[in-house]
Amino acid sequence: MPDKRFFRKSGTYSAADLAERVGGELLNCPDPELVIEDIASIEEATASDICFVENRRYVGALSSSAAAICILPRNIADRAPDGLALIVSDRPRRAFAKIATLFYPEDRPSTGISPTAAIDDAAMLGKDCSVGPGAVISAGAKLGDGVRVEANAIVGENVEVGAGTVVGENASLSHCLIGARVVIYPGARIGTRGFGFEVDEAGVIKMPQLGRAIIEDDVEIGANSCIDRGSGPDTVIGRGTMIDNLVQIGHNVQVGKGCIICGQAGIAGSAKIGNYVVLAGQVGVAGHIELGDGVQVAAQSGVTSTTAPGEKIGGAPAVPIRDFRRQVAAIKSLGRRNKDLEN
Amino acid sequence: MPDKRFFRKSGTYSAADLAERVGGELLNCPDPELVIEDIASIEEATASDICFVENRRYVGALSSSAAAICILPRNIADRAPDGLALIVSDRPRRAFAKIATLFYPEDRPSTGISPTAAIDDAAMLGKDCSVGPGAVISAGAKLGDGVRVEANAIVGENVEVGAGTVVGENASLSHCLIGARVVIYPGARIGTRGFGFEVDEAGVIKMPQLGRAIIEDDVEIGANSCIDRGSGPDTVIGRGTMIDNLVQIGHNVQVGKGCIICGQAGIAGSAKIGNYVVLAGQVGVAGHIELGDGVQVAAQSGVTSTTAPGEKIGGAPAVPIRDFRRQVAAIKSLGRRNKDLEN
Amino acid sequence: MPDKRFFRKSGTYSAADLAERVGGELLNCPDPELVIEDIASIEEATASDICFVENRRYVGALSSSAAAICILPRNIADRAPDGLALIVSDRPRRAFAKIATLFYPEDRPSTGISPTAAIDDAAMLGKDCSVGPGAVISAGAKLGDGVRVEANAIVGENVEVGAGTVVGENASLSHCLIGARVVIYPGARIGTRGFGFEVDEAGVIKMPQLGRAIIEDDVEIGANSCIDRGSGPDTVIGRGTMIDNLVQIGHNVQVGKGCIICGQAGIAGSAKIGNYVVLAGQVGVAGHIELGDGVQVAAQSGVTSTTAPGEKIGGAPAVPIRDFRRQVAAIKSLGRRNKDLEN
Repeated sequence: MPDKRFFRKSGTYSAADLAERVGGELLNCPDPELVIEDIASIEEATASDICFVENRRYVGALSSSAAAICILPRNIADRAPDGLALIVSDRPRRAFAKIATLFYPEDRPSTGISPTAAIDDAAMLGKDCSVGPGAVISAGAKLGDGVRVEANAIVGENVEVGAGTVVGENASLSHCLIGARVVIYPGARIGTRGFGFEVDEAGVIKMPQLGRAIIEDDVEIGANSCIDRGSGPDTVIGRGTMIDNLVQIGHNVQVGKGCIICGQAGIAGSAKIGNYVVLAGQVGVAGHIELGDGVQVAAQSGVTSTTAPGEKIGGAPAVPIRDFRRQVAAIKSLGRRNKDLEN
Repeated sequence: MPDKRFFRKSGTYSAADLAERVGGELLNCPDPELVIEDIASIEEATASDICFVENRRYVGALSSSAAAICILPRNIADRAPDGLALIVSDRPRRAFAKIATLFYPEDRPSTGISPTAAIDDAAMLGKDCSVGPGAVISAGAKLGDGVRVEANAIVGENVEVGAGTVVGENASLSHCLIGARVVIYPGARIGTRGFGFEVDEAGVIKMPQLGRAIIEDDVEIGANSCIDRGSGPDTVIGRGTMIDNLVQIGHNVQVGKGCIICGQAGIAGSAKIGNYVVLAGQVGVAGHIELGDGVQVAAQSGVTSTTAPGEKIGGAPAVPIRDFRRQVAAIKSLGRRNKDLEN
Repeated sequence: MPDKRFFRKSGTYSAADLAERVGGELLNCPDPELVIEDIASIEEATASDICFVENRRYVGALSSSAAAICILPRNIADRAPDGLALIVSDRPRRAFAKIATLFYPEDRPSTGISPTAAIDDAAMLGKDCSVGPGAVISAGAKLGDGVRVEANAIVGENVEVGAGTVVGENASLSHCLIGARVVIYPGARIGTRGFGFEVDEAGVIKMPQLGRAIIEDDVEIGANSCIDRGSGPDTVIGRGTMIDNLVQIGHNVQVGKGCIICGQAGIAGSAKIGNYVVLAGQVGVAGHIELGDGVQVAAQSGVTSTTAPGEKIGGAPAVPIRDFRRQVAAIKSLGRRNKDLEN
């Protein structure tokens, strides 16, 4: 049961209503109007809670649970104890996620404009925006309807932020256009100057960085992550892409739609990432290369060359994942052979 | 001698007093009331300073030092020049640290509540709290006695912060409970939403993140580090654990007591770290695995499987450190063999 | 053409003026007073724009460009179409950078002191400083002429900031001395307490961190990067060094002049980096080692030992780059051999 200090419950729901909302079949439930009060894990559930189990491994927990109702796959429905109502679902985790979000919706009502926010006279705010204490909305900035700018966050000059987007605490935006329903976590930096220098015998000169950062609709950008603006072309993050914490994205990078970029990954300047690409944690992608649609990269890998769509790769430098596994096995056996020689 | 613009000296101490405070033996000191004015390195010490040397390597510096008194181990005490008073200690560095902290205590007196702080009427503050300019204390937040919230930091709704804790500049806390005497460095993010998605043929849905982040007493969390809240279970950082800068800790991670987690390390979701574990810089720990008490992981390693207590491991994927060294040696010799073939 | 919402154009220039400013030769330009209105890429240029091409690969684009004038190297000047004016230059990219900065200068006029900035009575500000909304200038802090402190940034007690330096949004400075013309990007943390502990059977004690961070003139420090102050000695970043985003620099580190440190690199405590060193992305440098002048380290490498000037190294642990390439080749062939055995 979520801590009510931090999560606001929307209400209660009937068993039948919940089953219908997730497209599941209600079983063992004599009273479809049974009132469900809250969500819980199978171990912690009490007599008015809904929980879920994903597979056979949790059958034991099922039999000792005090829950009112449980979401589970059909192939273990017959293992449930008498008296436990069931919602049969092909994807119990997904169904539970939907129900949890129903009980604890993420949308918060507008909290209005804080008297300590600094909003320039030449900024434009849509309806029902929330602007927290100390937040700054600069001249020419445009916020769509329902935008939330949290405490001490900064929306720079002429930046546009689409409807329903959240700009987290202490985050800062400049030289960028942000889509609708984007979630920018605390401390993220978007539109900063790219790291571009020309180095030769005449010394270092800074290359101008005259592009923008374009963040499309439904993107998430994790806490303290950084997305530099382009140097001339734009840096672009495609619709629905999810970026975790402490990720670095260099200037001119193009990331496609629906990608998942895990914590502490980094993408160097001018790389082009396709749609639905997955970069696991701490991955590095070299500059100026392309990763095709659906490429998946194992954690900590270093991708140094253009990779065809659908490839699964790993290692540093990254190779097809099966080759990487062979390399790891070969190195292990080499290490073992050296050990034998020592003995 | 520390720069007095940045560090405030508490006073002066007698040689006898200092020796007693560190449990050391005073030698070569005709006047135990000799006044020591300041700390210094052995090279920079002047005639009223105390310094230390750890081992034989510094015997040369010892003979040319102008210091009033020096902390050193017994086995080099006879190498000290005449006229240099000595404090003999088994652990000179540790003794010096204690004395340096005596001269320059880290506790600062309360600076009160800044008139530009935004403190909600429904927040509760203990005695002697300091709240800096632009800091935000949200509704329902509770600060223990002597808490410092530095400039432009944000304590979110209903967050609890234990006595004597410091929340650094521009840091932000939400959905979390923070213990006593915790030090949160500038820009750290605690309690942010975890990176949880369900991906399948039906597309991506965000998993609700309805747990908390629990930070136990005496923890340190480095600058710009990120600790996500749990998804249902809590994320927990155990008592006395030290976390360096730019570290990422995912949702549901449990870290034990007294761990040391160095800069840019990352721990993926639901991993469980025992007590007194050491992760060196840039280490990655995979999700859902366990590291037993006392495990030590070499820098940049990638830990991909559960590891028994006390193991020292290295490499990516990490193996016992002796095996890792053998692997490195084997790869080096392979590289050399290839070189021979080229010639 | 840069987006005029985010970049302010300074004016227009004649073809002859531009050629002269970059030391190039004007060719195919019947009217040297031809007015150039803007910069653009070769593909997007319109009839009043200047663009550049670097080498033969772009000769095709050249023939179809609508640009008024193009900067190019001599060896492809004869491939340009009739009617396109030319500036011949040995370094077209560098020349273009200079011209782009002429059209879009980075210096911004002073925006004065925001009424919501918190400036201590005991702070000293030079002429023409800009202090943004919510920014904090603490007691004893000194800002040189023309310093910009952006919104919600914090300059700590007694910190000195040299003339023309920019302190980005939400950045924080303490225990440090900052040179002239330094650019500190949003969210950077400078002068924070180092990660220093003494661990032995008696437990953990925090080592005092009584040094400073010294940032010399013309340095850049990227977004959300962290530079800890020294423990007794200072942490020093030498003149003109460029540091990218999310970089970690530990206590007592000395970085020389003109270095380039790419995104997510980390340097552990007390390492000493020479002049003109290049660390590529995600590199780790171990504590207490030295890298000589001009050392270059490949991306994701782990440098564990002192390295002679001019060496190019790679791998983890890092070795001379040619050896690293041999190691990679050897591992690849091992992986392949294992594959043969499987078949």
